[in-house]
Amino acid sequence: MNGRVIQVINPNTSLAMTETIGAAARRVAAIGTEIIAVCPSQGAPSIEGHFDEAIAAIGVLEQIKQGKTQGVDGHVIACFGDPGLLAARELASAPVIGIAEAAMHMATLVATRFSIVTTLPRTLIIARHLLQRYGFEHHCAALHAIDLPVLALEDGQGLAQQKVRELCIQSMHKDGSGAIVLGCGGMADLAMELTQELGIPVIDGVSAAIKLLESLAALGLTTSKRGDLDYPLAKPLTGIFSQLQ
Amino acid sequence: MNGRVIQVINPNTSLAMTETIGAAARRVAAIGTEIIAVCPSQGAPSIEGHFDEAIAAIGVLEQIKQGKTQGVDGHVIACFGDPGLLAARELASAPVIGIAEAAMHMATLVATRFSIVTTLPRTLIIARHLLQRYGFEHHCAALHAIDLPVLALEDGQGLAQQKVRELCIQSMHKDGSGAIVLGCGGMADLAMELTQELGIPVIDGVSAAIKLLESLAALGLTTSKRGDLDYPLAKPLTGIFSQLQ
Amino acid sequence: MNGRVIQVINPNTSLAMTETIGAAARRVAAIGTEIIAVCPSQGAPSIEGHFDEAIAAIGVLEQIKQGKTQGVDGHVIACFGDPGLLAARELASAPVIGIAEAAMHMATLVATRFSIVTTLPRTLIIARHLLQRYGFEHHCAALHAIDLPVLALEDGQGLAQQKVRELCIQSMHKDGSGAIVLGCGGMADLAMELTQELGIPVIDGVSAAIKLLESLAALGLTTSKRGDLDYPLAKPLTGIFSQLQ
Amino acid sequence: MNGRVIQVINPNTSLAMTETIGAAARRVAAIGTEIIAVCPSQGAPSIEGHFDEAIAAIGVLEQIKQGKTQGVDGHVIACFGDPGLLAARELASAPVIGIAEAAMHMATLVATRFSIVTTLPRTLIIARHLLQRYGFEHHCAALHAIDLPVLALEDGQGLAQQKVRELCIQSMHKDGSGAIVLGCGGMADLAMELTQELGIPVIDGVSAAIKLLESLAALGLTTSKRGDLDYPLAKPLTGIFSQLQ
Amino acid sequence: MNGRVIQVINPNTSLAMTETIGAAARRVAAIGTEIIAVCPSQGAPSIEGHFDEAIAAIGVLEQIKQGKTQGVDGHVIACFGDPGLLAARELASAPVIGIAEAAMHMATLVATRFSIVTTLPRTLIIARHLLQRYGFEHHCAALHAIDLPVLALEDGQGLAQQKVRELCIQSMHKDGSGAIVLGCGGMADLAMELTQELGIPVIDGVSAAIKLLESLAALGLTTSKRGDLDYPLAKPLTGIFSQLQ
Amino acid sequence: MNGRVIQVINPNTSLAMTETIGAAARRVAAIGTEIIAVCPSQGAPSIEGHFDEAIAAIGVLEQIKQGKTQGVDGHVIACFGDPGLLAARELASAPVIGIAEAAMHMATLVATRFSIVTTLPRTLIIARHLLQRYGFEHHCAALHAIDLPVLALEDGQGLAQQKVRELCIQSMHKDGSGAIVLGCGGMADLAMELTQELGIPVIDGVSAAIKLLESLAALGLTTSKRGDLDYPLAKPLTGIFSQLQ
Repeated sequence: MNGRVIQVINPNTSLAMTETIGAAARRVAAIGTEIIAVCPSQGAPSIEGHFDEAIAAIGVLEQIKQGKTQGVDGHVIACFGDPGLLAARELASAPVIGIAEAAMHMATLVATRFSIVTTLPRTLIIARHLLQRYGFEHHCAALHAIDLPVLALEDGQGLAQQKVRELCIQSMHKDGSGAIVLGCGGMADLAMELTQELGIPVIDGVSAAIKLLESLAALGLTTSKRGDLDYPLAKPLTGIFSQLQ
Repeated sequence: MNGRVIQVINPNTSLAMTETIGAAARRVAAIGTEIIAVCPSQGAPSIEGHFDEAIAAIGVLEQIKQGKTQGVDGHVIACFGDPGLLAARELASAPVIGIAEAAMHMATLVATRFSIVTTLPRTLIIARHLLQRYGFEHHCAALHAIDLPVLALEDGQGLAQQKVRELCIQSMHKDGSGAIVLGCGGMADLAMELTQELGIPVIDGVSAAIKLLESLAALGLTTSKRGDLDYPLAKPLTGIFSQLQ
Repeated sequence: MNGRVIQVINPNTSLAMTETIGAAARRVAAIGTEIIAVCPSQGAPSIEGHFDEAIAAIGVLEQIKQGKTQGVDGHVIACFGDPGLLAARELASAPVIGIAEAAMHMATLVATRFSIVTTLPRTLIIARHLLQRYGFEHHCAALHAIDLPVLALEDGQGLAQQKVRELCIQSMHKDGSGAIVLGCGGMADLAMELTQELGIPVIDGVSAAIKLLESLAALGLTTSKRGDLDYPLAKPLTGIFSQLQ
Repeated sequence: MNGRVIQVINPNTSLAMTETIGAAARRVAAIGTEIIAVCPSQGAPSIEGHFDEAIAAIGVLEQIKQGKTQGVDGHVIACFGDPGLLAARELASAPVIGIAEAAMHMATLVATRFSIVTTLPRTLIIARHLLQRYGFEHHCAALHAIDLPVLALEDGQGLAQQKVRELCIQSMHKDGSGAIVLGCGGMADLAMELTQELGIPVIDGVSAAIKLLESLAALGLTTSKRGDLDYPLAKPLTGIFSQLQ
Repeated sequence: MNGRVIQVINPNTSLAMTETIGAAARRVAAIGTEIIAVCPSQGAPSIEGHFDEAIAAIGVLEQIKQGKTQGVDGHVIACFGDPGLLAARELASAPVIGIAEAAMHMATLVATRFSIVTTLPRTLIIARHLLQRYGFEHHCAALHAIDLPVLALEDGQGLAQQKVRELCIQSMHKDGSGAIVLGCGGMADLAMELTQELGIPVIDGVSAAIKLLESLAALGLTTSKRGDLDYPLAKPLTGIFSQLQ
Repeated sequence: MNGRVIQVINPNTSLAMTETIGAAARRVAAIGTEIIAVCPSQGAPSIEGHFDEAIAAIGVLEQIKQGKTQGVDGHVIACFGDPGLLAARELASAPVIGIAEAAMHMATLVATRFSIVTTLPRTLIIARHLLQRYGFEHHCAALHAIDLPVLALEDGQGLAQQKVRELCIQSMHKDGSGAIVLGCGGMADLAMELTQELGIPVIDGVSAAIKLLESLAALGLTTSKRGDLDYPLAKPLTGIFSQLQ
């Protein structure tokens, strides 16, 4: 595992959040794993809907390509909607993990059912669609939103963090859930503390994704290039996309 | 219905396919419906995977914005993966219909189960995911691929068309399906002819989407702007995305 | 589209409701579409359960046969349980649309999730079964009943209408739904007004079905007569059913 | 259990099949259970599609009402589509069992997965819909049709019986099913013999339904009259339906 | 049906509960059915979780083997989690029924949806998993726990019984369920009384299982020994398990 | 991660297979992770059905208790049916991972759909049930059995290994799967080699489980002791089970 490099891509352009995410990644990275935390050169400062996600997907691919050129050993998509996940798996040689899938997978290993706590109510549908895609609908007892925008997590006031904490406690008591999945990359720094305070697993996808990538590397596994996740077919991309492949 | 304008967006940059699609749209448009067939100014010449779809989604949004500025009354996303559909619904004021959903919805109205015939095998997973998202898994008896790229439909040789026809006939006999959904915008011109020849509904999503948009307009319905399909939150988009909102 | 005739079948024998339904149909019909609103010659004055539906199905078939003889171009089954839908599809040459399916399909095109507001609680199970059959369970956030019988919608007092309005508002606020499906043919006249007042799509299946039938006609599509929706096998029906085929 | 009477309703008007069904019922009835095998006074001679089923449902209700007047202790709907089942449950005081549900329930008690063998391919969709409704989709490994009409089972030639036997054997070997459900009331006399010959449970719904009714009676259970299976609301039924309630 | 013997296995070691269960079984057994109520020679005094269930499964198999040696005609597993059900089906020659499956099957025959009332909240997940396995997720409207341990049902104080009654009444009013399934073998004696008092089916699995076993016997059906429920492969079991096969 | 100890429990009593499994675990263990490979003191030499699994579950719990006493940091249940998984999670303080879930989770991270290759056909139902429980039904394209018993993998002849290889190749070509899950702990040594030879991920659950446990440890996560996976309730276990808690 010498010199393994994992690229953590914050799909939005917020540098503060990129740092939060990078720090969460570094906190759990194995000795010998180097974390490169990046964000797209252009895009949206936060991802709070399908429109933002479409933009974010391109930023993710831009960074995937760059990481691929650098020869990184794995990529994390650090936004809870996992924007561009399957596209990134096509483009990359190294494995790619989204933080929503990472957190959800881990949650099913430590509890029979979990709750999700996220930011704006309008993003709940994204989480619902991912639960369906990943197969975890039956494992999710409830979804909750603090009703504050993503960047409230970075405004230094702590109100968003306090609301997350309150909803976690409420989920624990009312949903009958054994674990809580934090539904935003910007909440990455809250997981360990809340896990301690509440006494149940409160799961952050960023750190979970790092460990899953290290796991895949140790297992000698990467995205299957047979079939539907094969490299994108070579074709003349034009305009702003010409450098993407 | 005077002066209604429907924008048909071919998410790839192939002008030939844009024409095929536009022609299919015009063939079924009601009197008083004007069809504007467009494609993105930049992007990929064909959409054959998730990577291509991520690029196509931006092209779709670019065109949605333009159509919105022009005051069109509805938008069609004319690629069978419905790339960028929910993002487009957020951005647009007028309703947006994807051709995969259009074809699948129509199919369930005329048969208990349908088969899908598409281009490359690697795109089958996209159709499978849409079936799950839209709720039509039980209505789809089987999925088939002609194993030729999308642009083979525009090469003037007719081989792709012949293979589509063969798979339709085979689906009819072996799958127990009462209808067939054509899984590519480039097949739009084949539906009516095959419907006649085979004696079962062979459904093209482009023309289906036109009629659904005309229907929504007549019903006074458009995308709900309450909640998760509300307009994108105003935020400073940067770089190539700065003009997108 | 010259001279297209759509037969709207109110499956109950209430003439007042037949008129409400016919008016709703005419309000959205395209120029050139003639609406014939009919109800069975015998049956039940309202449909509020499975027993009523079994009776209604025969009334529907009686009218389908008559419409077929008249050469109509499409049939609507204007009761929210879609009684006799698949039987009618077998019997008819022209396409047949139920108002529950019509409203549900349309709702999924303008919102990610919808609520249903219907009459008596005992009919909720019918809606639940249709959601399952049509594939829209994941798209329905909640079902509500005003707890008044169907004919309260025709008593001229307005209490039923007021309760529908209240439940629509409540659904909008509590269910997280972007659209509302009205669960009774007798509510057909409320949709446009509530859509305006509430600012979200409130969908009536009668008008939706008219537009879907016009759409199928324009697309050259009708019920697949291959396989399980083929015409009923010729057999000697006896007694009151002898004229039905 | 003295003097318990079970009414077995053959929903078609074939007297031969009514006898086959009645005999199968009597073969397994407990001492003290009297079987009354009836068929509607009018209707279709066989049930092979949704149209036939709609007619059959009225015949079923006609007989349910008669049985109710006679004070029978349970009703069987002896056609594999369970036509009119929920309507019959509303109308009847005594419990009502369909032979499709009876056979499917029993099959799940003796095998992890079962196959269905029925008559015409066009009826397969009816079985599929019932599997979904009853919750047994995962328990059904495959569905097969002998491609002969229902009445071929009564023509005395034995060809239909031979084809049923062949498909049972084939199902046993190819589907990985541990049991077979016979998909037609007219096959009721084949189950015991095939169970013996093949060495796996081959299940007839008629006899299964008798035992389920005897079971419910012994348990003091009947259809819940609370809520959605309550008696039909009293209303002025007209015409041929006026005597039905 | 002369001399039929059904072995009712209480999977826990509580003699009081074994008696409760045996009495419930005898109350509904047909004339000619002898009930042998047994419990394991060793194990746990109550089953309230997966750990307890794993232990109970061995106790069940011990008793299945003994019953098989005695030549009984059927086995009931009288704990609501149906512990060891498929293992028991492999081992036994006679059919085996779990009380959870028995109660759930019966409930679907008399109501469109049911509620479950059980003991400790921690056992709810077991019921959820069974609903999924058996296919009855859509038939269950809600699950409730009285939050008292299983043995509170045998402490003679009646508090547990009172709480069961309260939750049944509450379920009836709030869940929209037509029937209630009692979620513990120790509640077997409450079903008939509550059915009478509440006027809806309140279903005990012990008595239901007896009738299902009598039914299978009369139908000549037993567990399919073809495929995945065949007898356990002969192999040298060691230690405490050496006598189990 | 100093001194972390993972206990790998082979639920059968085969020492050869325990070694195979232990070796596979050690091959991927991080520096600082010590692997203790154990098997029950008594039980069955191979697990090939539900009966065997019930026995194995007790052996698993026996070893879980011992590992808990030793203070291990995680437990693997190294049999593809994950016998006793939830019981083990209740008993253990450290996290517990089954190899079926481990392999399935990993497969979904590197391919859109996977195939399973296992030993005897009778175990396929166990895999099917796990797919349902874990939520991966849609991710599994097909299941295959080599039709040789588990211990054929340890007989030194290589026939079983050859058949596994053949089925993997066949799955790759016919199922449209991007990855293969090996369905037996005894196949643990084949994964890396087949991954290399076939060029797609061939996944062994033993090694996957090790990495997931290391991941959970690094994340500070263990089984939620809130609610349904809390420690077993203290109760007087008798006989052979008295030492289990």
